[in-house]
Amino acid sequence: MYNNQNSNNTMKKLRIGVSLTSLLLSLSLHAQSEYVNPLIGTQGMGHTFPGACVPFSMIQLSPDTDTLSHNINGAYVPEVYAYCAGYQYDDPTIVGFSHTHLNGTGHSDLGDILIMPATGELKLNPGRASHPDEGYRSRFSHQTEKAEPGYYEVVLDDYQVKVQLTATRHTGIHKYTYLNKDRDGRIILDLNHGIYNYDGKTLWASIRVENDTLITGYRVTNGWARTNQIYFAMSLSKPIRKYGYKDKAPVAYNGFWRRFKLNENFPEMAGRKIVAYFEFDTSDGNELEIKVGLSGVSTEGALRNLQEETGGKDFTTLAQEARDSWNKALGSIRIEGNEDQKAMFYTSYYHTMINPSVYTDVDGKYRGLDNNIHQAEGFTNYTVFSLWDTYRAEHPLLALMKPQENRDMVQSMLRHQQQSVHGMLPVWSHMANENWCMSGYHSVSVVLDAIAKGADINPQEALKAMVRTSQVPYYEGLASYQKLGYVPLEESATAASTTLEYAYDDWCIYEMARRSGDTELAETYRKRALNYRHIFDRETGFARPRYADGRFKTNFDPLQTHGEGFIEGNSWNFSFHAPHDVNGLISLMGGDRQFIKRLDDLFSMDLPAQYYEKSEDITRDCLLGGYVHGNEPSHHVPYLYAWTSEPWKTQYWVREIMNRMYRNHLNGLSGNDDCGQMSAWYIFTSLGFYPVCPGSNQYVLGAPYLPSQELQLPNGKTFRIKAPGVSDKKRYVKEVYLNGQRYDKMYLTQEDLMKGGEITFVMSASPNKSRGLKKADKPYSLTDGK
Amino acid sequence: MYNNQNSNNTMKKLRIGVSLTSLLLSLSLHAQSEYVNPLIGTQGMGHTFPGACVPFSMIQLSPDTDTLSHNINGAYVPEVYAYCAGYQYDDPTIVGFSHTHLNGTGHSDLGDILIMPATGELKLNPGRASHPDEGYRSRFSHQTEKAEPGYYEVVLDDYQVKVQLTATRHTGIHKYTYLNKDRDGRIILDLNHGIYNYDGKTLWASIRVENDTLITGYRVTNGWARTNQIYFAMSLSKPIRKYGYKDKAPVAYNGFWRRFKLNENFPEMAGRKIVAYFEFDTSDGNELEIKVGLSGVSTEGALRNLQEETGGKDFTTLAQEARDSWNKALGSIRIEGNEDQKAMFYTSYYHTMINPSVYTDVDGKYRGLDNNIHQAEGFTNYTVFSLWDTYRAEHPLLALMKPQENRDMVQSMLRHQQQSVHGMLPVWSHMANENWCMSGYHSVSVVLDAIAKGADINPQEALKAMVRTSQVPYYEGLASYQKLGYVPLEESATAASTTLEYAYDDWCIYEMARRSGDTELAETYRKRALNYRHIFDRETGFARPRYADGRFKTNFDPLQTHGEGFIEGNSWNFSFHAPHDVNGLISLMGGDRQFIKRLDDLFSMDLPAQYYEKSEDITRDCLLGGYVHGNEPSHHVPYLYAWTSEPWKTQYWVREIMNRMYRNHLNGLSGNDDCGQMSAWYIFTSLGFYPVCPGSNQYVLGAPYLPSQELQLPNGKTFRIKAPGVSDKKRYVKEVYLNGQRYDKMYLTQEDLMKGGEITFVMSASPNKSRGLKKADKPYSLTDGK
Repeated sequence: MYNNQNSNNTMKKLRIGVSLTSLLLSLSLHAQSEYVNPLIGTQGMGHTFPGACVPFSMIQLSPDTDTLSHNINGAYVPEVYAYCAGYQYDDPTIVGFSHTHLNGTGHSDLGDILIMPATGELKLNPGRASHPDEGYRSRFSHQTEKAEPGYYEVVLDDYQVKVQLTATRHTGIHKYTYLNKDRDGRIILDLNHGIYNYDGKTLWASIRVENDTLITGYRVTNGWARTNQIYFAMSLSKPIRKYGYKDKAPVAYNGFWRRFKLNENFPEMAGRKIVAYFEFDTSDGNELEIKVGLSGVSTEGALRNLQEETGGKDFTTLAQEARDSWNKALGSIRIEGNEDQKAMFYTSYYHTMINPSVYTDVDGKYRGLDNNIHQAEGFTNYTVFSLWDTYRAEHPLLALMKPQENRDMVQSMLRHQQQSVHGMLPVWSHMANENWCMSGYHSVSVVLDAIAKGADINPQEALKAMVRTSQVPYYEGLASYQKLGYVPLEESATAASTTLEYAYDDWCIYEMARRSGDTELAETYRKRALNYRHIFDRETGFARPRYADGRFKTNFDPLQTHGEGFIEGNSWNFSFHAPHDVNGLISLMGGDRQFIKRLDDLFSMDLPAQYYEKSEDITRDCLLGGYVHGNEPSHHVPYLYAWTSEPWKTQYWVREIMNRMYRNHLNGLSGNDDCGQMSAWYIFTSLGFYPVCPGSNQYVLGAPYLPSQELQLPNGKTFRIKAPGVSDKKRYVKEVYLNGQRYDKMYLTQEDLMKGGEITFVMSASPNKSRGLKKADKPYSLTDGK
Repeated sequence: MYNNQNSNNTMKKLRIGVSLTSLLLSLSLHAQSEYVNPLIGTQGMGHTFPGACVPFSMIQLSPDTDTLSHNINGAYVPEVYAYCAGYQYDDPTIVGFSHTHLNGTGHSDLGDILIMPATGELKLNPGRASHPDEGYRSRFSHQTEKAEPGYYEVVLDDYQVKVQLTATRHTGIHKYTYLNKDRDGRIILDLNHGIYNYDGKTLWASIRVENDTLITGYRVTNGWARTNQIYFAMSLSKPIRKYGYKDKAPVAYNGFWRRFKLNENFPEMAGRKIVAYFEFDTSDGNELEIKVGLSGVSTEGALRNLQEETGGKDFTTLAQEARDSWNKALGSIRIEGNEDQKAMFYTSYYHTMINPSVYTDVDGKYRGLDNNIHQAEGFTNYTVFSLWDTYRAEHPLLALMKPQENRDMVQSMLRHQQQSVHGMLPVWSHMANENWCMSGYHSVSVVLDAIAKGADINPQEALKAMVRTSQVPYYEGLASYQKLGYVPLEESATAASTTLEYAYDDWCIYEMARRSGDTELAETYRKRALNYRHIFDRETGFARPRYADGRFKTNFDPLQTHGEGFIEGNSWNFSFHAPHDVNGLISLMGGDRQFIKRLDDLFSMDLPAQYYEKSEDITRDCLLGGYVHGNEPSHHVPYLYAWTSEPWKTQYWVREIMNRMYRNHLNGLSGNDDCGQMSAWYIFTSLGFYPVCPGSNQYVLGAPYLPSQELQLPNGKTFRIKAPGVSDKKRYVKEVYLNGQRYDKMYLTQEDLMKGGEITFVMSASPNKSRGLKKADKPYSLTDGK
């Protein structure tokens, strides 16, 4: 258990004491957020952040405990990996509170616009964790720390300042209580601070002191996002008494600056490495509230965002609104379970609603991929698309529970495609940048899945964007892929996994063309969807990279993750990647018995340490045999038994994964949360079904993790999932009843869920080996294996 | 004479040959531009550029012969001074053709978006002038060079490429003829090139190859303009065959760039020091036309600018339109004179219509001083305000001949004030930046002058902006100035001249308040307008800096320009700076006789070399005795005789200055043109009157330089200035007749001119010493000397 549980409990009790009546009245809406523990995943490699945000907000206001600058320009320094979200639980100091964070990524960035309260000697550098007194950072104790959805609190020991944070969609709100009233209050505004920081990441920064309670500014960075322009407006509850800045490197202003003392009380600051300070008279009261509006468009936009969302409201009101928004969002699923199960469920659900994030101002303006300012007509523009991860379960979950948001995310992707000089849908994009991270063009899956589930999206526009994306010749091996039917190893170090991924993506385009009645186009992409077969070595039944001349790679080790033509997965795991044509896969691996054996072996093997000990994000804990849950390529694999003669085995393994890979603990995630994908897997698997092939409209059945789960669907219907008596022992499904009728299929459809109703799983300690065997009850497969 | 005159003449004759009829038909409109020689001032310190622009255009497309990077971050390196406009006539090579240039400034900047045609070996650095083969620069000969308003032509010897340039308001148009047809055509696009360049001036640059005939991009620089964001769209007449770039310093993009060959045919480039190249098939024709639209707002804006202005038009058409626009602008004054006089007159008039420059897109959007994008409602936004220079004669000339443009410039200044975090009107501003160059707040003069001359400007808004500007306590010594009545030497190295300048500016605010009927405010500023008296040492009759305690500076040398409390002028010249209260000045200097003696001495003294030999912009040539015409503080001084008992002396000296300081020669300007101020002085003085005290509505009479000059006023009226027989010998004014009536006043008013009519100066070889002596005929003075 994490060591600040006591203080959390105390707080909960206090709140009940204060307003028992209102709490009871609103219990149905206000319960779920209290189970969320944002600290889960902040230790180890979850890469989550503990700070304040609201669902899908532009703001993720959170403490940064370090960011380990790497000084080699552009070169990867491994330590930076630990700080993808800016916070590591074991760190002894807090550098400050910055406004943007990625949730659970495997690559770091952001950490924009850092504010740190301070007192005493003026320090304008962060200092080192090992020597905190050198800089403005402060020691802190987790005893003083509280983290809840939309709220964060901590006391900075070095300054005796109590920090409280909350957020609206575009505005981070800080409340600093200077407990030592004798001292003058100060804040540091460090525009040089960042995550994935290196000397020169900040290309330019600017601050304007508009008046004694309003500061605006911006900075432009060259980080993971190649060019990130972030604007802010900062409103203060107390007038500034004195201010100034330093810039590590002197910056040319003009030949006449002798006229002004530029670094003191001069309301215009600009430079490459600006660290500013602002001082306040705290003798008349020791509280300072700061509202920081952000925008990707302009300082004008940031100010408008701030004013519209927070005008006239104090910290307490805004913190309550943030809590309410989380309770409303989280309340759409009600569950029964023990405290740990509820913590894990709602924390997971919470993590599925952080990214993608809003990237539109309140007036609809947003910065497009072409760096021009666009007006979002009829949608909200979103960013942070970690699509290699999130097409699997995160977007399908949003399509189910947050369809309006998911539809707008798809609209955002289509705009991205239109603004792209490559004409491509996003691969890994954030803040009006394409980062080209990971493989495939999985946007097509998200677009198809949303349309298949009824989202209001122009299908012709979507199809055109999908096709265009799949034809960019210079994108990783795509010209050769179109010619040869696979990506040759000469052209890509991940040629094999990329081929597998392209094939599924091409199925999505096939399906979209088919739905649109374009038979010819559909046929083209149907063929491309079978391209995964071209890299299957039928002798071994493993996917295996090939050269352009057709030869397979020699000296090939299917257990090895690195250097064998795959990314974040070895051939053992990745060979199962044809979610759209599982029957085809079964054939390739030698038929039903062989396929089952391969799955059994995967989950049961004893993987030698040499295959994971050097990987930065795989440890023994995230392995189940040779199955790696911490990375995504295997996420659908436990469900593949559904296509075989032993579907019940899914029921066994998914519960093993739930129990072993997700724990209500600081270090409770078995891998990066990956913008909600790990968490979305948890939610679906807990519900008892999983979208193995997004776009197919089917959810493949596993077994519910909890006895009662209830979806409050956005169409007003309720869908209940009952599994009375389910437990680790009674993990097997004996029978299933849908709305009272026996249900033998191995999947549910989107329509089944959206109609509302109830599905009951009769659980048992032993498997029902005869359920789900009929061909008619099997889930979708493009082919029957041929 | 400049050595390319022959080729110019040849061209002129050719044109007549080709289209004699149309030329004759349009002779009245199409004559003046042919007298303009844009090369005047390109040798020495005129700091003019020879390239193509149209009146007040955002574009100044011109060859850069060098820019002499200085590598000391921010530190002033003297050589950079020579390249304020990017071109020095004596240089042997051309680096390329960039799109933005300042006209005649004393501080360098811009040189944005350089293009250079090339062939042969690929070179992606400019190389050095001493070793041109090291880089992409080329040798050239002035024999191949033609410079006309709106048109420039040269042949690049190293590549055998003929370059032709023209411009619209927002678009630079290049036509490259690859004379050596065997070779492939190439262009270099150097986004690292700049004027006032230093290692790091370019903060970030980006290029998108939108398709094979369209490129967009932007760059952000930290030059003299602290942050200059410039966007471009580049349309090509031939498809790109191949392209790429290099970036001197590697820039982090992402960890996955191995997927792409980023530096070859990848349509997205970004970095700190990008130099790109584009290759074309020139075997099917050897001409390449490039249209480059600029915008301060966005690439979208740049493309819209380009399309609206140049859509469907080829180089020849656009070049003719540019010529037409200049002929129309220049044709508003018709003169009689010899070839040299016409060249000098029309070149001067041409130079008064380059800066300020348009800084609005065709859709009215512009980047404001607050870095937000604004919509210009009812005006065109302008930038490049060199106000310490241009308030004197440049803006008054525009107020007379280009009142709509001048009114919009004033509107632009008022918006600047509203967008300024200081609440100040511009001091020296360009491209949405305040550079704080030189002293005073002379915008107030331009605002008042425009309003006094009938511009449609809200007087209350104007007055408010003027007052606010004059009260910014941290602006050079202004807090003390308001308290003590002068800027103390402790607070400013230019305390004395700044005090003199503030006093005149305060007179402008007084006059604006008086006009608005705010008697109380007027009285406040009337007192401030007399502040110049506080730094007059009555014993010597010289302005002299004082300390805060009232003591005058000791060891004071009124001939010394540097270190004595003045800027760009010594006390001998600057002491005459009270254009609003010349009677007061006369008293301070000991009365009429003493004052005349001081003027006589100024023009006749033998200034020891020690006082000018170390100044970067003063040479013996720009001196007339101790009078320095190359810098502005003395520009009104020759006209001050008008207030004395010997007004005829003005007639002598102004003709001396015209003859000596302006010559139809490459090195024909006696100082920086200073955004048209030097040239506007020439125009007014040629016409026979000068706005000694802008805002007073009066033009003080000198003597016409030419026998016949005719103003086609923008209200449709014509005002003719006749001086039959005027010559160096017959330079004195015997009598004056206004519309046939004898006219004894020493000034004309704006109303006199705007009514249209004719003024005749009866010229004589000897002065009429009795003309203009009556008190009633004297020009405006705030006081009668007390």
